[in-house]
Amino acid sequence: MRTILAAVMLCVLFTSVVKVQARQSLNLMPLPAKVQMGSGHLVIGPTFSVSIAGQHEARLDRAVEIFLGQLGLQIGMPPIDMQVVDSANATLVIQAAGGTKSVQELGEDESYRLEISNAGARLNAPTTLGVMRGLQTFLQLVQTTSEGFAVPAVAIEDSPRFPSRGLMIDVGRHFIPLDVLKRNLDGMAAVKLNVFHWHLSENQGFRIESKKFPKLQGMGSDGLYYTQDEVRAVIAYARERGIRVVPEFDMPGHTTAWFVGYPELASGPGSYQIERRWGVFDPAMDPTREETYKFLDAFISEMAGLFPDQSFHIGGDEVNGKEWDANPKIQAFMHAQGMKGNNDLQAYFNQRVQKIVSKHGKTMLGWDEILRPDLPKTIVIQSWRGPDSLAQAAKQGYRGLLSSGYYVDLMWSAERHYATEPLSGAAASLTPEEQKRILGGEACMWGEYVSPENIDSRIWPRTAAIAERLWSPQDVRDVNSMYQRLALVSTWLDGLGLTHNSSYAPMLRRIAGKDDIAALKVLADVVEPVKDYTREETAPSPATSESPLNRVVDAVRPESSTARKFADAVNELVAGHAKPGSESRVKDLLNRWRDNQVELQPQVEKSLLLKEVAPLSQNLSALGAAGLAALDYLDRGEPAPAAWVTAQLALVEQAKKPQAQMLIMVAPSVEKLIRASAGQASAGPAAPSSSPENRSTLMGQRGGPWNLRKLIFRR
Amino acid sequence: MRTILAAVMLCVLFTSVVKVQARQSLNLMPLPAKVQMGSGHLVIGPTFSVSIAGQHEARLDRAVEIFLGQLGLQIGMPPIDMQVVDSANATLVIQAAGGTKSVQELGEDESYRLEISNAGARLNAPTTLGVMRGLQTFLQLVQTTSEGFAVPAVAIEDSPRFPSRGLMIDVGRHFIPLDVLKRNLDGMAAVKLNVFHWHLSENQGFRIESKKFPKLQGMGSDGLYYTQDEVRAVIAYARERGIRVVPEFDMPGHTTAWFVGYPELASGPGSYQIERRWGVFDPAMDPTREETYKFLDAFISEMAGLFPDQSFHIGGDEVNGKEWDANPKIQAFMHAQGMKGNNDLQAYFNQRVQKIVSKHGKTMLGWDEILRPDLPKTIVIQSWRGPDSLAQAAKQGYRGLLSSGYYVDLMWSAERHYATEPLSGAAASLTPEEQKRILGGEACMWGEYVSPENIDSRIWPRTAAIAERLWSPQDVRDVNSMYQRLALVSTWLDGLGLTHNSSYAPMLRRIAGKDDIAALKVLADVVEPVKDYTREETAPSPATSESPLNRVVDAVRPESSTARKFADAVNELVAGHAKPGSESRVKDLLNRWRDNQVELQPQVEKSLLLKEVAPLSQNLSALGAAGLAALDYLDRGEPAPAAWVTAQLALVEQAKKPQAQMLIMVAPSVEKLIRASAGQASAGPAAPSSSPENRSTLMGQRGGPWNLRKLIFRR
Repeated sequence: MRTILAAVMLCVLFTSVVKVQARQSLNLMPLPAKVQMGSGHLVIGPTFSVSIAGQHEARLDRAVEIFLGQLGLQIGMPPIDMQVVDSANATLVIQAAGGTKSVQELGEDESYRLEISNAGARLNAPTTLGVMRGLQTFLQLVQTTSEGFAVPAVAIEDSPRFPSRGLMIDVGRHFIPLDVLKRNLDGMAAVKLNVFHWHLSENQGFRIESKKFPKLQGMGSDGLYYTQDEVRAVIAYARERGIRVVPEFDMPGHTTAWFVGYPELASGPGSYQIERRWGVFDPAMDPTREETYKFLDAFISEMAGLFPDQSFHIGGDEVNGKEWDANPKIQAFMHAQGMKGNNDLQAYFNQRVQKIVSKHGKTMLGWDEILRPDLPKTIVIQSWRGPDSLAQAAKQGYRGLLSSGYYVDLMWSAERHYATEPLSGAAASLTPEEQKRILGGEACMWGEYVSPENIDSRIWPRTAAIAERLWSPQDVRDVNSMYQRLALVSTWLDGLGLTHNSSYAPMLRRIAGKDDIAALKVLADVVEPVKDYTREETAPSPATSESPLNRVVDAVRPESSTARKFADAVNELVAGHAKPGSESRVKDLLNRWRDNQVELQPQVEKSLLLKEVAPLSQNLSALGAAGLAALDYLDRGEPAPAAWVTAQLALVEQAKKPQAQMLIMVAPSVEKLIRASAGQASAGPAAPSSSPENRSTLMGQRGGPWNLRKLIFRR
Repeated sequence: MRTILAAVMLCVLFTSVVKVQARQSLNLMPLPAKVQMGSGHLVIGPTFSVSIAGQHEARLDRAVEIFLGQLGLQIGMPPIDMQVVDSANATLVIQAAGGTKSVQELGEDESYRLEISNAGARLNAPTTLGVMRGLQTFLQLVQTTSEGFAVPAVAIEDSPRFPSRGLMIDVGRHFIPLDVLKRNLDGMAAVKLNVFHWHLSENQGFRIESKKFPKLQGMGSDGLYYTQDEVRAVIAYARERGIRVVPEFDMPGHTTAWFVGYPELASGPGSYQIERRWGVFDPAMDPTREETYKFLDAFISEMAGLFPDQSFHIGGDEVNGKEWDANPKIQAFMHAQGMKGNNDLQAYFNQRVQKIVSKHGKTMLGWDEILRPDLPKTIVIQSWRGPDSLAQAAKQGYRGLLSSGYYVDLMWSAERHYATEPLSGAAASLTPEEQKRILGGEACMWGEYVSPENIDSRIWPRTAAIAERLWSPQDVRDVNSMYQRLALVSTWLDGLGLTHNSSYAPMLRRIAGKDDIAALKVLADVVEPVKDYTREETAPSPATSESPLNRVVDAVRPESSTARKFADAVNELVAGHAKPGSESRVKDLLNRWRDNQVELQPQVEKSLLLKEVAPLSQNLSALGAAGLAALDYLDRGEPAPAAWVTAQLALVEQAKKPQAQMLIMVAPSVEKLIRASAGQASAGPAAPSSSPENRSTLMGQRGGPWNLRKLIFRR
């Protein structure tokens, strides 16, 4: 079988278009590099068996064991039926040419070839890592057919575009329990991410046990931290899934929680309490005292022993310098050293820390701010500033990772993250050698507004789109295909135990205080949390780490698929090429929104948590009525009167304003209907919903100047 | 505050009716013994605090910690905000007069008094166990109000009717992983069950590590067993929730899996393989060899050390005696001892085993069969035969537990389990002293057709109704109230991580092979698995422990609430006292059923797992059409023609037959509509749906003579 398939593959000369189409016909995310469809399918039944040929290592056996467990869950058959057999006649023959490094390395080969015919399947890879990736592809291929579960006949050759594809989880601002991390590691493996960046310390919490400095977690964590055994368990769990674990200890800023137990590290007089507010704060380590480096040497030595990965992240972002300015000794030191400002002082600190990190055998990672020509070229820059800043670093010989554009806490659409390309802007015109220094990117889950209950919904499914950007060829960028497959991946991730979908109804039920949440759901389905950093700015009173995350804004999804589909239908409608049924779907939705207020209002009076959404519900009702009236004008072919249009547009403007820190995402589409009903040109042949322009009309979504300002003080 | 409330309680003389009504106005399950409603409520906000006055023990602190974690989840506030404070000014002051036994005992005091005013709450109990029960009541009282989360002002005095309220899980037939057991322990604690009966060995698997006899799990479990550390973890987890753990090692029958590694224990020549089929099998221990008792002495010694509970269950059920009959040495032994039959031999075995169990400090439990006057009065009988058999034992001085009527694998309605009363039949006329020997009861989850995926849906929520029967006063028996509260408890159990609801849609999606399961759900919502042991009898081919449990019958609920509500509406309708909207709801449902076949049929052709439900879908469609036509006759006040009625009733008979091992539960109600449309008397003022008579018209649900026969060979 293998020979035949290989021959087929040799005979076919793909065009780029054919490749893309073949890829997209499969429900895979990320899409593989090369796909050749065969005919027929391979049935996966109780007699399914696996053999491992070639190179054997414990990690491979475990990978196959995990695979069989997942496959068993997927098709609902007991795992006992699917045993690893040592035979070339197995349904799936796995062959790894080599093993893997004892500690997973950046750039280790993850490629694989998966060949499936109706007689059997072969998975070949140079390493166990490639086998892991290929097995995930196999799982995603499983379909329901009239003959039972099956995978289609196909030949796939696949490898990642970037060697470093990460997810950062900030467990400092809100502690995230182990089981939540583990299910997110499962999610990462499913979409072929390979770096878990663990942001372990923050002003609001120091989250890991230090045996050398037990007051770090003892006084800096409210008791919410990981023991070293637990950390080892996470590392082992990640390794079994082909994922590196990179710890981050943010310094010299973001360190208030360290100073509760060890105030002598700080630049201010102390004492310090665990920070409860959000923002950038004054406390920073004292870079002028030798004791600081002695402490860090011992601490980094301990953590370097605990975390086997080559990379060690020291943060280095957002030092406001106020404690340094206020400390005469530090000022004297800077003067004596001829330092021109706090940037010089931080650079000095980074140099010292880099030497310590290097002494303990690690490569230093840090955020944009650490980049200064006085640091060696071995360090890696994680950019929150964007591809241009990354390109600049690459030109100077530094390696880097893109995170700007991948901050999932900013509540952007999957589309917008998907459009963020590491090799764009100045990076597009780098030499191939320089481009190689751009190692990939990382989705960042900052923790101000996440709890164990809603964090999955902030990470998934949007992070799968980022994963595809980082794995798949650059020409994979069809947004409609992405959204289609994202919906399937989202369900697939449900099956892995992620709660991005399953936590939605329970949270709404808690808010409504009843089981029947139909009316609340109609509203919740079309709103999104405000974008970028406007949640802080629109807060009635400042939120803290102790604020309950049980409000409607905490439950609703970052991206409303109802609003997206509604926008698509409205665009078709006003462009005059509506699909059959499209108008009636639009009308049904508008009707439901108009009438929903009557259902929801009595509930609002019974629940404190519902009170704040009353204005949203009223606005949605008004939007429904306005949209229906506009459709009526359109249907009758009679232009809407100017006065009516003006009044309705004012109402839409009102409805676009954030309320309860949420936005009604269907407002721009209703505006289109109103403008179209008045024959206004701007509503003419609309841009397809898949273009970012079309979906960025809501305040804050694109980021105005205030936003750039804000970002300067933010990672 | 406490004094005032206590005074109020003293002043009020309850009538029984008032008590029942007050109890039922609260969403509690099980209902407390005494409830006195106050006015107002106590708001549960971020400043909520708890203090522990009086007796302190680690178990109490842990109970409060678990409570705070659950409360935090329930209201969506971070646990950090709710700390145990040592002050009488706490929102909730907990006072336990005494601690608990180091090993939880049968009959330890579980009573508590909970007094809530709008200023604060007090929970008083004689023991930590009572505090645990009271905290569960507190959690269930939390409501959503216009002022935020709150508990109503109320005074509750509560204690259980029976001291032993259990859930048995059979992990022998299908292995059930630790996390599934743990979430079920959470569910048990929520409804105040206090005994986890762990059925650890079966023909199909020996599920626990023995260090003395490692071939037990080594050869008898397919690698699916609990290590002793895991067992200790389960016991500790249960203890923190006030639950005893009683292990069962079924012997001398149900022991094939033991014999794979230790064939010398058996009465037959061997060799033995792990049994894959279901049923009662020949292998049994050899009661005539001293080596058998030597082995059991060592084994029971090991297990008695591992399981701290006083009770030790030796099974003792369903020995068919065939291996004994076929073994000349055993026959010779029986002859020499003057034994008249296999019953005598088993009694001899039980006596020997009882002495071993007793020697290791334990009280022996066993199924009905072990009851023989030659065993000491300390043993406890678990009855699968019913209250009469239990009463007989009690009269002889034996203590007993009722399990007959509580077998949740038989797919009975909650109502039917709820109607099963331990002190009914002959037990009702026992003397008070004899009645005290009836210790309570136990829901039994036998494992032929459960997997980690669907086991919760077989246990919950119906087991909560059993829990109420065993905890609440005997006069608590309003079925409508039970169903109303059961629905709320079901959602409450969701919040604890139980998957009885959440696994439904994913299983249907897997079967349909697509995300949109609307049509399949319409069908699945009105069918139930066949009742009693008819699943085996109606199987196209015999199921084994290796059969996938991924079929529609494995996904659908044991009890269809759609069918129950439909029956209620039809009953109102044909009785001529329909509530407003009732007829239109009935019509909507009938319409949906009639039209559903058109939606579902194309999907059936694409999925092997859907194929078998095609006849069900056709029958449901026909029922929908017949019901609509009957309603039409009724609306027009024109009797339906006899020929039409005859044809429709034939169709209903057809639809009542099991298909794909499922029953369409709305068929009897449609039959009622048809008969009513013909003016047939039998359809007249219908019995309310809450009476068992009304819901037992489907084959097998009440159990015919074949069923009794079957039960003789079954536990």
